[in-house]
Amino acid sequence: MSEVFDAVDVIITKRDRGELTDPQIDWVIDAYTRGVVADEQMSALAMAILLNGMNPREISRWTGAMIASGERMDFSSLSRPTADKHSTGGVGDKITLPLAPLVAACGVAVPQLSGRGLGHTGGTLDKLEAIPGWRAALTNEQMLAQLDDVGAVICAAGAGLAPADKKLYALRDVTGTVEAIPLIASSIMSKKIAEGTGALVLDVKVGSGAFMKSVDRARELATTMVGLGKDAGVTTVALVTNMQTPLGLTAGNALEVRESLEVLAGGGPADVVELTVVLAREMLAAAGRPDVDPAKALQDGRAMDVWRRMIQAQGGDPDAPLPVARHTHEVLAEGSGVLTQLDALKVGIAAWRLGAGRARKEDPVQAGAGIELHAKPGAMVRAGERLMTLHTDTPERFERALAALEGAAFIAPEGSRPDLLPLVIDRIA
Amino acid sequence: MSEVFDAVDVIITKRDRGELTDPQIDWVIDAYTRGVVADEQMSALAMAILLNGMNPREISRWTGAMIASGERMDFSSLSRPTADKHSTGGVGDKITLPLAPLVAACGVAVPQLSGRGLGHTGGTLDKLEAIPGWRAALTNEQMLAQLDDVGAVICAAGAGLAPADKKLYALRDVTGTVEAIPLIASSIMSKKIAEGTGALVLDVKVGSGAFMKSVDRARELATTMVGLGKDAGVTTVALVTNMQTPLGLTAGNALEVRESLEVLAGGGPADVVELTVVLAREMLAAAGRPDVDPAKALQDGRAMDVWRRMIQAQGGDPDAPLPVARHTHEVLAEGSGVLTQLDALKVGIAAWRLGAGRARKEDPVQAGAGIELHAKPGAMVRAGERLMTLHTDTPERFERALAALEGAAFIAPEGSRPDLLPLVIDRIA
Repeated sequence: MSEVFDAVDVIITKRDRGELTDPQIDWVIDAYTRGVVADEQMSALAMAILLNGMNPREISRWTGAMIASGERMDFSSLSRPTADKHSTGGVGDKITLPLAPLVAACGVAVPQLSGRGLGHTGGTLDKLEAIPGWRAALTNEQMLAQLDDVGAVICAAGAGLAPADKKLYALRDVTGTVEAIPLIASSIMSKKIAEGTGALVLDVKVGSGAFMKSVDRARELATTMVGLGKDAGVTTVALVTNMQTPLGLTAGNALEVRESLEVLAGGGPADVVELTVVLAREMLAAAGRPDVDPAKALQDGRAMDVWRRMIQAQGGDPDAPLPVARHTHEVLAEGSGVLTQLDALKVGIAAWRLGAGRARKEDPVQAGAGIELHAKPGAMVRAGERLMTLHTDTPERFERALAALEGAAFIAPEGSRPDLLPLVIDRIA
Repeated sequence: MSEVFDAVDVIITKRDRGELTDPQIDWVIDAYTRGVVADEQMSALAMAILLNGMNPREISRWTGAMIASGERMDFSSLSRPTADKHSTGGVGDKITLPLAPLVAACGVAVPQLSGRGLGHTGGTLDKLEAIPGWRAALTNEQMLAQLDDVGAVICAAGAGLAPADKKLYALRDVTGTVEAIPLIASSIMSKKIAEGTGALVLDVKVGSGAFMKSVDRARELATTMVGLGKDAGVTTVALVTNMQTPLGLTAGNALEVRESLEVLAGGGPADVVELTVVLAREMLAAAGRPDVDPAKALQDGRAMDVWRRMIQAQGGDPDAPLPVARHTHEVLAEGSGVLTQLDALKVGIAAWRLGAGRARKEDPVQAGAGIELHAKPGAMVRAGERLMTLHTDTPERFERALAALEGAAFIAPEGSRPDLLPLVIDRIA
């Protein structure tokens, strides 16, 4: 078949700081999906995009072309409005677990397609798989039925959704082209728009444990994604939130499920509760239910009820004991004073090395592995007290985890105050 | 085998405008040659190099690593000094054909490893293959014996020379990463240094028919290559020469051999003679023979004698009639006046379309195809006179060749003077 465009011409256009035309973008995404544009051509184009950028029209068209590469889901037959949340990934970010049932308990359906962890950030599916019997894979029909019945579903995205993005994401991962805002924004938004949600709340994390290391870059990504949502007719709001320090007191699969259950039971760490409620309010408002107070549904057990039904609907036993790692190691405070810093990246890498995450896509994860924190920045600690407990099934991993934690905690003299950013730094709508 | 470096780290270093270390460069070239660094990783790195550059140390090391990927030839056993010439490619650039025997006739051996044409620029091997019986392939031993006996050899580079460059060049061709000065310079110089010549004269062409479109870019490439030659202990001089208009009066394989024979017989177009003699003087001087006058060896037939022996040594018959195309088409002047412009690129593309060049590496070329010019810029022409004669075996090609020639020639009112750059624009040593 003769092609309309030549891949080299498209690459050279972007290399020389030109704008790609709509037909060029449509063609290059389609031809890449068909295998006509080769991996080595797409990676050169991705590098040119990373270094020379794309304007809003180009990013919007690129996103649309990735959506058009696969199927689109449709939830218009549901009796309830739909809202979804996407986090750009952080350490200890288990928010989806309490949030999805909480929002469903408030009358808005949550079709949450999630991923697995890669590197130091955890994956929602890995966490839920710590629950005995729970299955991530659902057909589109099963997903729709569960949304109708339970109101919340967290499952793996099927292969039919934005296949161009799947192929491009794997390529970017091995070619140093992950960190391009146009490519990050279009990757996230193509999946979320194809998923068919009516409203979308984005949690753009910033700080050492996040992809975005500066507030400016996080704002740029948030603004880009909100624009893409609007272009596609999806009500989209983004919060820029703090990922300098881990969320809550746990990082690791079963450990985070346990903490989520505390939140669903009306307790749990203050930052996890706050972010869950703030995001629930945004989702409800974006779905046309601004008057519902989600905090109440956490306290009165309605969110927990939906959780139990959601887990059961996917084969999980909400009453089964969660896996526990076979070995633990305590990290003690070396001095007394105020804990002013607890670095999210270092904690995330340590949890990963303990077995909570994977280095390659095909690696297994340990359900019980991870880190429990006994203090968060702002807390007083005394020399010899426990700062963290490390969990793993394979104790030979402790050494490399402890190496990653070198310098993670900073204890300042009594009376010091940590210089902390607020949990929610900005809101972009 | 465990690798010392990670390809993504190397890519990210250059992407973020860092300098690659010597061990990073050695590793990435070696690992790419071994297939451990994938094509899609190398093309992303090539794009990052194109957009963010390399400093002289990086370019020098990159060149050295490409040389180290294969064998190095050694001509130290010859009784004569050696000198080679490399042209960055142009339209009608047949200079190697008279130049190599001319320099050999003056006592300096010329080991000329040449390539085939791709796109609108011709290839020296394609031209010589128009001579019945002539063979491009020689073993290293045959090459050395011919250099010792005849003093000049023009042949194809063996597969053992800079294999990293061969692989990278093919990749750059399909990924929009050809036009990076560090990559062009290291590609040319790795082959020439591995070839083992003692002295090297570079003909860096600038103008519409050349890769370099501006004199500044041509100077930058020339300066970079001269520096690489010095780093490797090869006496290197570069001339920046004009490629706004074709060299001589022919573009095409057998047509250019015929013109070269005119030059070797003491005649031929003034610009071809001038550039041949200028380059011969540079080669002789760089090889330690500054006092020899090459112009004399053209006039007295010594250069022609070496030519005949050189062609015979590779199986060619210097007395056999050259192939002639089966069809011709005359292009006539549309008005009277001074021909002020004759665009090299347009003539090159037209000759290519007539069958003189190839679109893909595996395509054949027509020995007789090409273009004869009947006037060059500065000449008076009258309406209805012949400007060019197009030659091809396949007359259906005339239409696309004529389309390429649209606007190639400009005829200004009588008394006008063409605004021409000199043939030799600059000299960098």
